[in-house]
Amino acid sequence: MPLRRAGSSPALGTILLRSMPVNLKPPASLPVVAGVRLATTQAIKSKHRDDLTVMHLAPGCNVAAVFTQNRYPAPPVTLCREHLQKQADRQTGIRALVINAGIANAGTLGAGLEDAKESCRLLARLIKCRPAQVLPFSTGVIMERLPMQRYAAGLVRCVDKLAEDNWLAAAKAITTTDTVIKGATATAHGATITGIAKGSGMIHPNMATMLAFVATDAAIEQQQLQRWQKQISTDTYNTISVDGDTSTNDSFVLISTGKAGAARTSGEQRALKTTLTDVCAQLAQAIVRDGEGAKKLVMIHVHGGKSCAVCRRVGESIARSPLVKTALAASDANVGRFLMAIGNAGDGFDPKAVAMTINDTPVLQGGGIHPHYNEKKTAAELKKEELTITVHIGNSNSHALMQTCDLTHDYIRINADYRS
Amino acid sequence: MPLRRAGSSPALGTILLRSMPVNLKPPASLPVVAGVRLATTQAIKSKHRDDLTVMHLAPGCNVAAVFTQNRYPAPPVTLCREHLQKQADRQTGIRALVINAGIANAGTLGAGLEDAKESCRLLARLIKCRPAQVLPFSTGVIMERLPMQRYAAGLVRCVDKLAEDNWLAAAKAITTTDTVIKGATATAHGATITGIAKGSGMIHPNMATMLAFVATDAAIEQQQLQRWQKQISTDTYNTISVDGDTSTNDSFVLISTGKAGAARTSGEQRALKTTLTDVCAQLAQAIVRDGEGAKKLVMIHVHGGKSCAVCRRVGESIARSPLVKTALAASDANVGRFLMAIGNAGDGFDPKAVAMTINDTPVLQGGGIHPHYNEKKTAAELKKEELTITVHIGNSNSHALMQTCDLTHDYIRINADYRS
Repeated sequence: MPLRRAGSSPALGTILLRSMPVNLKPPASLPVVAGVRLATTQAIKSKHRDDLTVMHLAPGCNVAAVFTQNRYPAPPVTLCREHLQKQADRQTGIRALVINAGIANAGTLGAGLEDAKESCRLLARLIKCRPAQVLPFSTGVIMERLPMQRYAAGLVRCVDKLAEDNWLAAAKAITTTDTVIKGATATAHGATITGIAKGSGMIHPNMATMLAFVATDAAIEQQQLQRWQKQISTDTYNTISVDGDTSTNDSFVLISTGKAGAARTSGEQRALKTTLTDVCAQLAQAIVRDGEGAKKLVMIHVHGGKSCAVCRRVGESIARSPLVKTALAASDANVGRFLMAIGNAGDGFDPKAVAMTINDTPVLQGGGIHPHYNEKKTAAELKKEELTITVHIGNSNSHALMQTCDLTHDYIRINADYRS
Repeated sequence: MPLRRAGSSPALGTILLRSMPVNLKPPASLPVVAGVRLATTQAIKSKHRDDLTVMHLAPGCNVAAVFTQNRYPAPPVTLCREHLQKQADRQTGIRALVINAGIANAGTLGAGLEDAKESCRLLARLIKCRPAQVLPFSTGVIMERLPMQRYAAGLVRCVDKLAEDNWLAAAKAITTTDTVIKGATATAHGATITGIAKGSGMIHPNMATMLAFVATDAAIEQQQLQRWQKQISTDTYNTISVDGDTSTNDSFVLISTGKAGAARTSGEQRALKTTLTDVCAQLAQAIVRDGEGAKKLVMIHVHGGKSCAVCRRVGESIARSPLVKTALAASDANVGRFLMAIGNAGDGFDPKAVAMTINDTPVLQGGGIHPHYNEKKTAAELKKEELTITVHIGNSNSHALMQTCDLTHDYIRINADYRS
């Protein structure tokens, strides 16, 4: 089949190669976070949009980050880990993040690592800090080298125009195949939280072609920040799967500038953590809603396995099955495919104890068709844009959530064409 | 997106919903195997083609079989296991197989098991044997009940017209979304081997929506037959993956009628086993060539891991990646996706030792881009209909083969429409 080649990335928010995401609108505005200044410019690939972002942090910020589990972490990921280790050793604090879209600088071996180091050196020189105080991020095509001359010139332009009120521009500049920019914000006891994320393909737990940067002006002590970040990752970013592929560049960064002071009571602390989790949950779900080709958001809740890991395995098996995902795309009540997917999830549950509903409509019971299963009703439920699939695999209190989307022609079109 | 609904299964060998498979033609003829008589009729769903097959075995045949690893084996699979256990206990020998397409009789719980038992009883009465001497097989949509009245009438018609020369008709009658009927045949020292298979979606190791029936008139002792079958499964049917989904009904049956006598020398034995393996390898590869929507056959050889299991894990990670498979569909040298997929294959190899070629064209070396990588050359190779991807992940003698196909629009079309 002759496949149409995309000229460039689709204009954000418009229909081009892709249809609209599932009930997802770009944020109208993103409040500033005292201590964070941002700027964007056109430097890497596209001639029509900014694709290089600098995020400058005031002195004294705490920064925590988690990265891809892929065995080929991109050189910027390797460098981030080194620089964060230095922060942990209290040698230096992080002073800036630099993020480029278009080229992932992955699979580029020593040369790519040199490029990433050079990007830190260049920015450090401009903002007068040490290279180890800069965290570099890249997203885009794997195996291509960064255009370092254009990159360097772009850094100069960015540093010239750093401003607190540039979160929206940054949210746009970090995107690749995204059709909608992703941002979320909230307040908790006088502290502001603002976050941005990108990603819509190569999305699977631990983690995805996903970048997320969330900052708060609340003061959070470094150890606490790291603990919270780990829990938040598990509950949000690590529940989403678009295509089961885990990328080389995934990163989630959580920044505390401290400009608004610390949460005082333990109640305030809890509220702050909950609000941080909410912001991240919104960003994570936005990625699935904008999943490549997605026309449906599918929440899969699995209950009652021997452990949460077993529940998760069942959820992942459903979320990864191309046959389930194509049936969802077609609103086809070919519900046996769910049974097949659950049956491929390995041990840790009794197949005969399995029950399943789709939006409360009974589908499976006792490991087979539910006695009140009604194909027409089920097909009607499947037509909805947002689905909740609830699977019970036993009686324990274990639970896992997976969030995924359907598998459509547009997924194929995007991934057979995309080389932005 | 409005999805076109297929009226009925596509006429075999013609272009309808699907394009042609990858360099695969139906067998011109399939030689008889003394001791096996077959018949087909229209009984289950379609009005345009036969979908019920009876395979009658002379007394004294040995039969070995392997089945799906899915935790929801369909009732016919459960019953086959029981009946083969009885054969093993020397209570009875298998005298007939009955195979229906259109409905998988899976997820049908006790009622489905009763239907499967009834099908054995009905056929046993007609051919005068015990129900435990009949093996039932079903393939098609999961969660629907068999139309037992039409099924029963079909059995009568089949038994009336059993004949040795009906292998081609059987090869056609067992198909579902297949576009080409699949058969293979060979001879070894005067023995004939003839086999048929069906399957093109829900295909992944251990095993697939795959049925394969292979018979030889060579005499092979039961224990030997079972040993050989296990090895042959590993080397052939368990190397193929279309979509990573493992079905509830997969079965591979190997029959020795003994009518041509036993292989005498150990050389003859080896030749017989090799020929049996060759026939099964042809059938297995035919399933991938006819993979749903497939336009390319992709052989993935992985060498040098700590164990064959590690090699296999790397092969599977490549064979399952939607991003690799869409790049293959587009002949797009987006080779970083291979690196990503290998990096998601877990432990047991040194990422920095990984090298990869596509049809002998260098792509990866030292865990990154090969110094002689040439995008144009690689893209030219990727345009070919048959690809060999060779991955070295270390220096051991371990090896694994995976055979897969690309992921195209037609896969989506077929699986969002198919409810034959």
